[in-house]
Amino acid sequence: MKKIYQVDNVPISGEEILVQESIFHNANGYIGVRNCLEEGVPEEVRSVRGSYINGFYDFSAMNQAEKLYGLVEEKQTILNVADTQTIRLYLDGEEFSVFEGTLEKNRRTLNMEEGWTERTVVWTSPKGKKLEICCRRMTSFVRLPLFLMRYCVKPLNFSGAVMLESLHSGDVENYYNPEDPRVAGERRNYLEPVYRFADAEMSLLETQTVKSGLRMCTAVHHRVSVPYKMQTEEKGHGVTRKISFDLQQGQEAVLYKYTVFTDSIRNGRCREEAVDCLRELTQLPVEMLYKEQKEYLDSYWEKALLEILGDDEQNRAVCYNMYELLQSVGKDEHCNIAAKGLSGEGYEGHYFWDTEMYIEPYFLLTDPDMAKSLISYRHSTLEQAKENAVLLGHKKGALYPWRTIMGRECSGYFPSGSAAYHINGDIAYSIIAYYLATKDLEFIREKGMEILVETARLWMDMGAWHEGSFRINEVTGPDEYTCMVNNNYYTNVLAKHHLYWTARFDEMLGGQDFAEREELKEFWEASRHMYLPYEEKLGINPQDDSFLEKKLWNLSETPKDKFPLLLHYHPLYLYRHQVCKQADVVMAHFILEDMQSLETIRKSFLYYEKITTHDSSLSTAVFSIMASRLGMEEKAYHYFGDSAKLDLFDTHHNTKDGIHTANMGGSYMAVVYGFGGVRIKEEGLFLAPSLPRAWEGYRFKICYEGRRILTEVSREGCRIMLEKGGPVKLHLYGKEYLLEGCLEQQ
Amino acid sequence: MKKIYQVDNVPISGEEILVQESIFHNANGYIGVRNCLEEGVPEEVRSVRGSYINGFYDFSAMNQAEKLYGLVEEKQTILNVADTQTIRLYLDGEEFSVFEGTLEKNRRTLNMEEGWTERTVVWTSPKGKKLEICCRRMTSFVRLPLFLMRYCVKPLNFSGAVMLESLHSGDVENYYNPEDPRVAGERRNYLEPVYRFADAEMSLLETQTVKSGLRMCTAVHHRVSVPYKMQTEEKGHGVTRKISFDLQQGQEAVLYKYTVFTDSIRNGRCREEAVDCLRELTQLPVEMLYKEQKEYLDSYWEKALLEILGDDEQNRAVCYNMYELLQSVGKDEHCNIAAKGLSGEGYEGHYFWDTEMYIEPYFLLTDPDMAKSLISYRHSTLEQAKENAVLLGHKKGALYPWRTIMGRECSGYFPSGSAAYHINGDIAYSIIAYYLATKDLEFIREKGMEILVETARLWMDMGAWHEGSFRINEVTGPDEYTCMVNNNYYTNVLAKHHLYWTARFDEMLGGQDFAEREELKEFWEASRHMYLPYEEKLGINPQDDSFLEKKLWNLSETPKDKFPLLLHYHPLYLYRHQVCKQADVVMAHFILEDMQSLETIRKSFLYYEKITTHDSSLSTAVFSIMASRLGMEEKAYHYFGDSAKLDLFDTHHNTKDGIHTANMGGSYMAVVYGFGGVRIKEEGLFLAPSLPRAWEGYRFKICYEGRRILTEVSREGCRIMLEKGGPVKLHLYGKEYLLEGCLEQQ
Repeated sequence: MKKIYQVDNVPISGEEILVQESIFHNANGYIGVRNCLEEGVPEEVRSVRGSYINGFYDFSAMNQAEKLYGLVEEKQTILNVADTQTIRLYLDGEEFSVFEGTLEKNRRTLNMEEGWTERTVVWTSPKGKKLEICCRRMTSFVRLPLFLMRYCVKPLNFSGAVMLESLHSGDVENYYNPEDPRVAGERRNYLEPVYRFADAEMSLLETQTVKSGLRMCTAVHHRVSVPYKMQTEEKGHGVTRKISFDLQQGQEAVLYKYTVFTDSIRNGRCREEAVDCLRELTQLPVEMLYKEQKEYLDSYWEKALLEILGDDEQNRAVCYNMYELLQSVGKDEHCNIAAKGLSGEGYEGHYFWDTEMYIEPYFLLTDPDMAKSLISYRHSTLEQAKENAVLLGHKKGALYPWRTIMGRECSGYFPSGSAAYHINGDIAYSIIAYYLATKDLEFIREKGMEILVETARLWMDMGAWHEGSFRINEVTGPDEYTCMVNNNYYTNVLAKHHLYWTARFDEMLGGQDFAEREELKEFWEASRHMYLPYEEKLGINPQDDSFLEKKLWNLSETPKDKFPLLLHYHPLYLYRHQVCKQADVVMAHFILEDMQSLETIRKSFLYYEKITTHDSSLSTAVFSIMASRLGMEEKAYHYFGDSAKLDLFDTHHNTKDGIHTANMGGSYMAVVYGFGGVRIKEEGLFLAPSLPRAWEGYRFKICYEGRRILTEVSREGCRIMLEKGGPVKLHLYGKEYLLEGCLEQQ
Repeated sequence: MKKIYQVDNVPISGEEILVQESIFHNANGYIGVRNCLEEGVPEEVRSVRGSYINGFYDFSAMNQAEKLYGLVEEKQTILNVADTQTIRLYLDGEEFSVFEGTLEKNRRTLNMEEGWTERTVVWTSPKGKKLEICCRRMTSFVRLPLFLMRYCVKPLNFSGAVMLESLHSGDVENYYNPEDPRVAGERRNYLEPVYRFADAEMSLLETQTVKSGLRMCTAVHHRVSVPYKMQTEEKGHGVTRKISFDLQQGQEAVLYKYTVFTDSIRNGRCREEAVDCLRELTQLPVEMLYKEQKEYLDSYWEKALLEILGDDEQNRAVCYNMYELLQSVGKDEHCNIAAKGLSGEGYEGHYFWDTEMYIEPYFLLTDPDMAKSLISYRHSTLEQAKENAVLLGHKKGALYPWRTIMGRECSGYFPSGSAAYHINGDIAYSIIAYYLATKDLEFIREKGMEILVETARLWMDMGAWHEGSFRINEVTGPDEYTCMVNNNYYTNVLAKHHLYWTARFDEMLGGQDFAEREELKEFWEASRHMYLPYEEKLGINPQDDSFLEKKLWNLSETPKDKFPLLLHYHPLYLYRHQVCKQADVVMAHFILEDMQSLETIRKSFLYYEKITTHDSSLSTAVFSIMASRLGMEEKAYHYFGDSAKLDLFDTHHNTKDGIHTANMGGSYMAVVYGFGGVRIKEEGLFLAPSLPRAWEGYRFKICYEGRRILTEVSREGCRIMLEKGGPVKLHLYGKEYLLEGCLEQQ
């Protein structure tokens, strides 16, 4: 099946415009441009006309209602940096707008094989002129600064003059809406103009942030396929080109609009770099740019193969999710993956634990270098994590921020922000997972170990010995409906794993001074005696010390319009109940399944399932994985469906603010770790494929210690093929095999 | 000893001006005026020039850094309503200012027997003119709207013209200081002018609040003892009178300046009322106003006798504290006692649990009607408490706000605000205490029971049965260094008492439909099976379920400059340790001493003492009381001293923001409940006086069931005398006696 997502008769009412802007946005990990209507929208129609640079931010004041020591009073926010996507079209005084005249065709296409989006419109003006417009957009994976638009126009029932008004504007601002508490409520000015230039070849805008003092540049070049006249208007921090030409009926004109984005984080001479880069790009044949993009994606899909047979919709959804992860993932150590990727301003462009626990597992299995780069980003912000630890009162160690861009904490509500100390364990887990899947001990020596030791020190500083076991008090686990608890199972089990591996790596790296001998001994001890709450009678791991003493929330009696609960109940009320926003113990059982018996895992799953709302988009994928693990096929399939379709079907009603990258990783994991049963442990690679009844089969490739392994699952059984690399032992359905060529299991 | 507090050579540098403004403020429970220099201060000198009306407020936005359902986004704030205290003095072009010329005498006096303050200054101008100024201020206890100034001026070495410029201004604003996080950081406009009027007799200003729509009025009249000329300037929302006269050397001129305050909360026609009231007042001889005040205080001190013999400083301090409580306590059901009384803008004029647990016990023993009025205030805000309960997710019951003026919650940080559910228990406790001391069942029927039932319902709605006992999860006890815990001992023991007495009163009131039968049964059950945490090994009551599992904070190793801890440590860090801001379990053991054995109380005291910082002003008094209870005389005396002197010696360095009313009540309690051993229980009145070694003796009077009982303690023993009312049984040092006339114990 072609990796193409196409929608005809795209709705243009209500919030659909916003949703399409997110879903069809173009990004390459460095820049992202929402797919807004080129010609703009009338004032009453809501649209977020944004272009973003990953890791580019300004500081913004965040006032606390009551000031307490250490509360964060300044956050970072991703910036809408420029508008170069606006192209208005005029026919002899009539302006093109889908909100007037007649729309005969309105198609959106996302071509994930070739790496572009297209919008095709057949429109008849109020005065009867009919034309076709087709706009293709591409953010290049090969040349990260490039955003390329190809705007084609063809008169269908007339000949005459066409005028395109193409904008290059730095007079932009972040989206705000005083009515919506979930986005910025006030207009804020983050950007100041520095430099504006325009000649026949290019226009150039340099902009500086107000507080962080970062600079960025956009350079724009236009090329037109027919004879034309161009008029230039410079005004404020913007340049407008009016491009006029005559067309015969049926004749097509093509405008190529090149935008190059550069910034001072990556290059201090960002203005010069933008000019050089644009010149270089415009000298290349445009077809070459498209070809490079396709080649890049050919190679990507070759690595990241995942196909579901027998359910096109789900197959397309997972394919879309994987493509979006590639679009979102930062390509250098200055950035990471935002909760919304580069598709919108939701969560202000912040990076969360989502990266380590939901997205890195995907890259680890498909492109481990990407995982390495994401870890490098954490390494580059280790100093800020140490400062954060000091702010939180710690005498040693590092505490990574719950949400951040440049490394400083941006959480305004610490009980479900800074208190989520598990972020340290998550980052450690991802480093250990990287090692287990690659055996790249060199990277552990180079960067991993420093992170592991500093974050391990924090556990030692904040934990407490009590009755012979090591306890971790006053933290918040993954579930944000229960905050500031003692001995959150997830946190403790992760800390145990973290401390153990930190000491292990020290042994493996032998003789390097990452930590004091005494300290390492303490890591061993704390890991060995880590307190893991367990409740005998129920046979489950309590989420924390007091979770099971709280009132059970009856979800079946909760009115539908009260979901998500967080929008309808005071945090204190939620905290007082046994009710979960998302997988917590269940998540811990997925990532570290050998810490408890399968019986405990099963009982826990059934217990928590009853009280989990899945109000977080990070939940259903994990429940799907664990349902697979426990042989609950129907449930696994059901949860997977919820996860896979979240954005394409806007099931959480907030895709308008941007896509949900963590869930995208989760839906991949639900297939490969879930149905496929993949685990990578110290003991090696594990597989245990199962096939949902609704499917005919599925296939996926994974990387393991430099090898590439293809797994195909069908009604007949499963086949595991070694595509690249030498023979390797693996565990299939619990039995060890040596994989040399192809392993089949009926 | 005369009840006079006098300071010579009052310092005029640094923050002293602010401290004196608080300490010598005049108030009567309805209005309060800070004792600022009449002539004003130069711009660089900090001063808070405020006049306040108890219960008069405006709403003010309180933005939350992260919006969550139910978080409070609007608070109430007390308002600086007008300036009528400004009187500038000019001598032939020279303006009087203590910051220029020579100051020979600079005395402040607070006369607590006659109910006024005086400031006496002998000053020589830069050009050599010497004069004496004496300004007496009084807020009348008998005529609450009246603030009266008597401004005397006497040339000492010259004869000539004197001009007084007396202001009546509504162009005022609340204090703000962008540098100080503990007060308002931004200028805000709360008041709008409505009406201005001036004739020869009076000036009148009416003002309306911007958001709450309340109105208030000030009417001012001047009377001068010598022939004078008066010029009037009306400008903005103010009236200035320039009063000129000639004086001979040694001749004194007296200006009486009457201000009347009225407001629309108490009287919709507040403008007319101000005019009528001022006219009535100015027709009375001024000496009568002073005389009434003295008579009022004679009667007050007669009831509220407390004398310490052998330590004048402590005697004066406690006397001052009692006087300030009288100044602060609201005299009608529209208001209460603010944390800072009417002496400043600290805590924004909010009422806390301080009232019920630290101040009402004082009034209950000296003037029970005052306690009744404070309870009536809570009754008048019961509807808002019900709304607050709904906001917090409860299906029934009422939850009183942690801090408020008009009844709505004003807490911006809910973990140590709204989560302090013990406020419900505190209010219930005060009602039960009122009954036990007065046996006024009629008031229970009329108002008390409704409060008791609604707040009892809340425990039932929020509590949870677990393993046969009733538990209260996710609340914050008195100690704000530990938040959102399960089974805070203080909260639970109070809830037990509250539920028991609610059911008991229902029986006593028989047949009234305050609650359903089924509900009352549940109250009994929950009370009987209330879970009270107890730790066997230590033999103490843990502060909450997990308190003892946390790391012990070593206070002796904490640098002095890190106190108070809240200004130097992140809340999460504090929460993770065994460290207390104030008495919590120790407080519970004071108020409900029969719930545990004396041994548990003793061990608990010693345990918590080691980890209590007393960073809250509510702490040392309770530690003093319990040290007395446990026979730890030295400690009791030491803690009492800390408590008694807090404001007069500005030991917490924030008296500038206002006095600490709760601690004032606490210092009284430390003598009467502490050294005197007074308890009032269902079983009757208990006394067990002890005498600190440093004292010669002490004496105090208390009210009990309409009787007045005088207790005198000396080296020889103690004498208990029935001053008023019939014979009564009492328990002295654990033995029961019948008090008929005088009971002596050697």
